[in-house]
Amino acid sequence: MSGGLLTDLYELNMAASYLRRGMTDVATFSLFVRDLPPERGFLVAAGLDPALDWLERLSFGPDELDYLARTGFDAATLHALERLRFTGEVWAVPEGRIVFASEPLLEVSAPIAEAQLAETFLLNQLTFHTTLASKAARCRVAAAGRIELVEFGFRRTQGVEAAFAVARLAALVGFVGTSNVEAARRFDLRTSGTMAHSYVEAFPTETDAFRAYAHDLPGPVTFLVDTYDTQEGVANALEVIGELGLARAAAVRIDSGDLVALARQARRMLDDAGLHRVRIFVSGGLDEHDLARLVANDAPVDAAGIGTRLGVSADAPYLDSVYKLVAYGDRPVVKLSPGKRTLPGAKQVFRGPGMRDVLGLRGEPPPPGTHPLLEPVMRAGKRLSASSDLDTARKRFESDLDELPPPALALRDPQAPEAELSDALRRLVDATGAPPAPP
Amino acid sequence: MSGGLLTDLYELNMAASYLRRGMTDVATFSLFVRDLPPERGFLVAAGLDPALDWLERLSFGPDELDYLARTGFDAATLHALERLRFTGEVWAVPEGRIVFASEPLLEVSAPIAEAQLAETFLLNQLTFHTTLASKAARCRVAAAGRIELVEFGFRRTQGVEAAFAVARLAALVGFVGTSNVEAARRFDLRTSGTMAHSYVEAFPTETDAFRAYAHDLPGPVTFLVDTYDTQEGVANALEVIGELGLARAAAVRIDSGDLVALARQARRMLDDAGLHRVRIFVSGGLDEHDLARLVANDAPVDAAGIGTRLGVSADAPYLDSVYKLVAYGDRPVVKLSPGKRTLPGAKQVFRGPGMRDVLGLRGEPPPPGTHPLLEPVMRAGKRLSASSDLDTARKRFESDLDELPPPALALRDPQAPEAELSDALRRLVDATGAPPAPP
Repeated sequence: MSGGLLTDLYELNMAASYLRRGMTDVATFSLFVRDLPPERGFLVAAGLDPALDWLERLSFGPDELDYLARTGFDAATLHALERLRFTGEVWAVPEGRIVFASEPLLEVSAPIAEAQLAETFLLNQLTFHTTLASKAARCRVAAAGRIELVEFGFRRTQGVEAAFAVARLAALVGFVGTSNVEAARRFDLRTSGTMAHSYVEAFPTETDAFRAYAHDLPGPVTFLVDTYDTQEGVANALEVIGELGLARAAAVRIDSGDLVALARQARRMLDDAGLHRVRIFVSGGLDEHDLARLVANDAPVDAAGIGTRLGVSADAPYLDSVYKLVAYGDRPVVKLSPGKRTLPGAKQVFRGPGMRDVLGLRGEPPPPGTHPLLEPVMRAGKRLSASSDLDTARKRFESDLDELPPPALALRDPQAPEAELSDALRRLVDATGAPPAPP
Repeated sequence: MSGGLLTDLYELNMAASYLRRGMTDVATFSLFVRDLPPERGFLVAAGLDPALDWLERLSFGPDELDYLARTGFDAATLHALERLRFTGEVWAVPEGRIVFASEPLLEVSAPIAEAQLAETFLLNQLTFHTTLASKAARCRVAAAGRIELVEFGFRRTQGVEAAFAVARLAALVGFVGTSNVEAARRFDLRTSGTMAHSYVEAFPTETDAFRAYAHDLPGPVTFLVDTYDTQEGVANALEVIGELGLARAAAVRIDSGDLVALARQARRMLDDAGLHRVRIFVSGGLDEHDLARLVANDAPVDAAGIGTRLGVSADAPYLDSVYKLVAYGDRPVVKLSPGKRTLPGAKQVFRGPGMRDVLGLRGEPPPPGTHPLLEPVMRAGKRLSASSDLDTARKRFESDLDELPPPALALRDPQAPEAELSDALRRLVDATGAPPAPP
């Protein structure tokens, strides 16, 4: 699959029309999130790599052209699509940086047919990666450096592709590992896993199961203690830990019930037995609010598995992202539909101290004390550097997170900083504010 | 990729332990949704094909074994995994059928290591396909046969895999087409597409854009009329329709604002011009509640594009699905964790008239007037029939939809039928209700 059909039909229709009329002027499209969901005070830019990979490979193979012929595209259009490659320029916010509403995550400048064809795929990838990274970042903020986080979402993400994405993006924002083995292999992450209730149930007694697991698996072992009764489960784990000398490399996992109370009880039982180094791991439909509650209650929890509600970004499963034409040829462009007004021109985000951002024009000089967020990442259809590595992205995220004002970090009713418009952008808005004269 | 690492680490750990101990008894796992989300009165079973495909291909290739060796798995385990294939039996509810909470979508019976390894992938695929199919079905119900539906979700689904799934599943529940070209090619769906605001903006005037589009694209043409001002947009479309004689093959699309009022105004303008056959298409962040409002207000809307909120099942982006051990060897199994109690034994769902379901044991005779929902779909690791075709699935859905009681169809606070337990299952529950004696 060469990727050309990974698009909405209207992109192909519009591209066909542009190609047929020889409309080859360079168009600039800006991809940004119009408004943040109510429970998001910031976004973590992500998804750039697969977007650029697709642009580099964009073409129409014989099977795809054949399909388009059967659906009514004419020979001239097919011929033009056969030769089409992405030859444009892309500016983007590097992965891991924190951004806000109205700030472009990415801008494409290319002959209009090419730029238009890219809309669907670019929106898909940047939206869903940014959605998942931003949710994972909230979990990381809630854990407050006191609870280690492991990504457990694979079983209920919206597909395998999403499972890979969330494993990688969770690591980007500071999770220590993932349960997803193939994702760990691909992205060089730490795998983490315990046992399921079914394992305990497959043995005559819970103690038999714990003993077998500790015998069979090398390395640290985590005993799932809530299959039958949590207090009894902890007692059984204590017995096996003592019997096998696992005091330095064991944990108990609690997956149901009142986690604060059960963790305290388990900690007491472990401490009473002198097992101060045995860790407590919790799981079971947790999200950032549950993590905040554990932290606020000073629950003796060492680590947590965060699955479903992270894996689909349950409280905000999408972002209001758009890909808007902002310039065509020499002409800045605006759209005036009610509630959907766009700002004209190729842009830049100038970041000041404390995340005071100025949304300006790409060509204008940075206001004093600011630096630009968008960087050129592709020219003439070729990437300007190798794909982003996770460590670099992680550092960007950590550095931005340190700068984020507290109201943006709040889990409930966060307040995101709002970018100001630069004088130059304001003047351009005024100059292009009116719709074209009626014909 | 041979698929073996598409799993959570703990599945591999447990499988390794079972293999090492020669625990090869057949385990039965039951995959079901514990509770429906508040806004779901029914689920549409989906995702069986990719699940069975994966089971048929399940193996560990050299690269995967090498990775596992590096992460600490020993030689004996690697050798056992190298030879491992899925040799079990699968029963499942055929795609398109309507199911409810607690009813197995699928049951796997296989040597316990094989059955355990399948947990993550099977949960992932059945959960996300069923989530999306069920959301699409609500849109279909809301449209009440009065508004044609087109799937527009690609740009904001959680990945490309999810975009393919939602295009196909929307078609399964009665959508007439999709904007996703590659999905249309793969699944033989009708593509549908209009134009974007950017197209209108790329021309000096809206009328120029409409004229160009109608010239360049053969077949029915849809004019997007809200780029600048909707009323003026309709007037411009009228002009071009008249000029080019498109009265029988044109539509106008309204993508923002008060759709009921704007559609009425557009209909009046079109009718006044004698253009009774020009259709009205609406879009813009719509979901089933918006569709119901259009229908309730008798808005003159012929078709609608349903995108983002369908594409991620925004109000219920996951299901509370589980994969539970219900039998091992000769022994029925239960789990007693608070709020997570499971029912023992391999099951069958017996459907009576009006969707009165009885949840029973697989081996028991169907109660009079009922038929079983779960069918054998795989034996000895081989599928029993070719992959499900969309038309057959669509017929199953239509037939079940006709039977669904009205409270389950409600968009707000739906009431799903609850399956009764058969006497035989009840007896087995009583017999297995106590946890095993403490060691």
